[in-house]
Amino acid sequence: MGKDIVQIFDTTLRDGEQVPGCKLDAEQKLVIAERLDDLGVDVIEAGFPISSPGDFKAVVEISKLVKNATVCGLTRAVKKDIEVAAEALKHAKKPRIHTGIGTSDSHIKHKFNSNRDAIIERAVSAVSYAKTFVEDVEFYAEDAGRTDNDFLARICEAVVQAGATVLNIPDTTGYCLPEEYGAKMKYLKENVKGIEKAILSCHCHNDLGLATANSIAGVINGARQIECTINGIGERAGNTSLEEVVMILRQHPDLNLDTNINSKLLFSTSQMVSQKMGMVVQPNKAIVGANAFAHSSGIHQDGVIKNRETYEIIDPEDVGVNESSIVLTARSGRAALAYRAKIVGYELTKRQLDDVYQEFLKFADVQREISDEDIPRIIGACKLDIESIS
Amino acid sequence: MGKDIVQIFDTTLRDGEQVPGCKLDAEQKLVIAERLDDLGVDVIEAGFPISSPGDFKAVVEISKLVKNATVCGLTRAVKKDIEVAAEALKHAKKPRIHTGIGTSDSHIKHKFNSNRDAIIERAVSAVSYAKTFVEDVEFYAEDAGRTDNDFLARICEAVVQAGATVLNIPDTTGYCLPEEYGAKMKYLKENVKGIEKAILSCHCHNDLGLATANSIAGVINGARQIECTINGIGERAGNTSLEEVVMILRQHPDLNLDTNINSKLLFSTSQMVSQKMGMVVQPNKAIVGANAFAHSSGIHQDGVIKNRETYEIIDPEDVGVNESSIVLTARSGRAALAYRAKIVGYELTKRQLDDVYQEFLKFADVQREISDEDIPRIIGACKLDIESIS
Repeated sequence: MGKDIVQIFDTTLRDGEQVPGCKLDAEQKLVIAERLDDLGVDVIEAGFPISSPGDFKAVVEISKLVKNATVCGLTRAVKKDIEVAAEALKHAKKPRIHTGIGTSDSHIKHKFNSNRDAIIERAVSAVSYAKTFVEDVEFYAEDAGRTDNDFLARICEAVVQAGATVLNIPDTTGYCLPEEYGAKMKYLKENVKGIEKAILSCHCHNDLGLATANSIAGVINGARQIECTINGIGERAGNTSLEEVVMILRQHPDLNLDTNINSKLLFSTSQMVSQKMGMVVQPNKAIVGANAFAHSSGIHQDGVIKNRETYEIIDPEDVGVNESSIVLTARSGRAALAYRAKIVGYELTKRQLDDVYQEFLKFADVQREISDEDIPRIIGACKLDIESIS
Repeated sequence: MGKDIVQIFDTTLRDGEQVPGCKLDAEQKLVIAERLDDLGVDVIEAGFPISSPGDFKAVVEISKLVKNATVCGLTRAVKKDIEVAAEALKHAKKPRIHTGIGTSDSHIKHKFNSNRDAIIERAVSAVSYAKTFVEDVEFYAEDAGRTDNDFLARICEAVVQAGATVLNIPDTTGYCLPEEYGAKMKYLKENVKGIEKAILSCHCHNDLGLATANSIAGVINGARQIECTINGIGERAGNTSLEEVVMILRQHPDLNLDTNINSKLLFSTSQMVSQKMGMVVQPNKAIVGANAFAHSSGIHQDGVIKNRETYEIIDPEDVGVNESSIVLTARSGRAALAYRAKIVGYELTKRQLDDVYQEFLKFADVQREISDEDIPRIIGACKLDIESIS
């Protein structure tokens, strides 16, 4: 049986770009959009056309450029927004309008000073209007994470009837726990009449560090699209990390889900986005951080050397990293030192290793990291009769 | 009914420090240990005493310094390791020895070239021996994430009988999904005879971005200790983030779980560890990243200004951040601009705001971020008759 495909909706250029100090110029956006298309994302959210002239222009240019992916523009549930988005998307091979409105009581009351029935009416009008321009209309129920499931099902049913092809269920504040977010998807899957005509989409924020887990809970419970960004960038604590959800599905074949992503481009795409946005990726970032495949502790290094599979579960080459680097520190064990020494040309006997290791520990207690170039110096300091084998 | 307390076991100074290039000197370790004690962690894992002379000395000094927390030292299931750890911990008010062995078939075969019964025997010997030095002995079942639950229950039962007070169930490779990790805890809770005599502990790695979610799944299913690090640092993609699990339990009172952490020290502790280790915290890091409380998009800013609770779920002051900063970019809406203008001294009419906003967008399309100092220039460029109200 073939695996079900989860669509990857990349919003690096829209929700991801909403980061203080990280605005991209039009040219940078085009370079990233082209790379996202090569990476194999199914949908590129290119911007929020009505928000500024720069954003409008970027959506126009991306629409002209992209070959494979659907190009999507964001709108509020406002006629003018939808018209401007449709105009910006007119050159796209596969255009999608993404429209919606806040559905939680907090949003309905504080943001719109409105009521539930009026909100459903506005949602349906927006979707119907968007359908006059494009076939593919995605509806977002903002703050769905804090919207009660019964009302959420009602509004979803109404917009599906109006022609929505995708239902985006955002956990806007990043508040949900995975069980809760998964249960929400399950509820919609089971209680929205006509749900088979639309795809449920996960859009999670990382305020509590749970965006990835929530998105996975969503697809386990029936969603078939994940909205995410490269490096998990985005406002506040950011969005779901594209690279994390893609690799989780790939590493867990038992879920019977996969994406169309070419994972070998993940690392270089991460680096590209980080550089263009000036947004640092912390070394301990999952999948794409500089240390994600580096092993420094002795116990672990010993394990990796004996059998890569003992500790590593992702082959670094699968995400475009050439080799798992072994970095030596004071925590490294004898095996790691011997392994590294061999690489730089010294085959040590056990007794020689004992001496070299003592010397190594003194070096390592002073110096934070021992590189290959330090090894001959350390061996030299032992004054042993060791010949380089290289 | 009082909430159940989840013990916070901080391993910043042991597993966290296993990061290439981040070795701390003894003095830095003492400063961090003192802060962790103030923060309210229940256990400080201070090091792996046998691994190097520097580590041994650090554990000795931390044992003398710490007032409230239990101080813990790591060992392999090896007599010499345990003796050295006991020696290093002898000044601790509440000492704990943390010993253990790999339990997955992969570890048993590739790392130890052994079999299950022999591994249980070694585990029991190590725990019994550690008990001759200290009352509080934690056992780790390395690679428990990939150990079958039946064998895991057997080895847990054996070490509890030998006197283990805590059972650490590490997902060493960061491979588990939350459901799976939670189910493992539930299985142990239900199938280990004598489990009421010990505390189950979550020790998760972040290779797939799921360490936080797995730890939360663990405590929901009966674990009562989480092993974690400040900023989630650690080898490869790091460990569970202390700040994330603490704030999740605090933000979800319905879980009826809490910790002893003084959350107001989280932000400053994060900054301290980042500086001392030279490990960057990415701006979009949950809870403690620089952007975690910054709002740049117009829609969101409007919401925050009308009612903080519309978008923010954590009060920044609860984690020691003074105010949620509003940063203006091309994506900011009129409300955010008007709010910021008012703060710097201009009360704009709606018509004035329309003009200033157009000018602002031109500025913002060129400049990545508009600071308060730019606002008078933007207003000046409009040549409107606007008086500063300040």
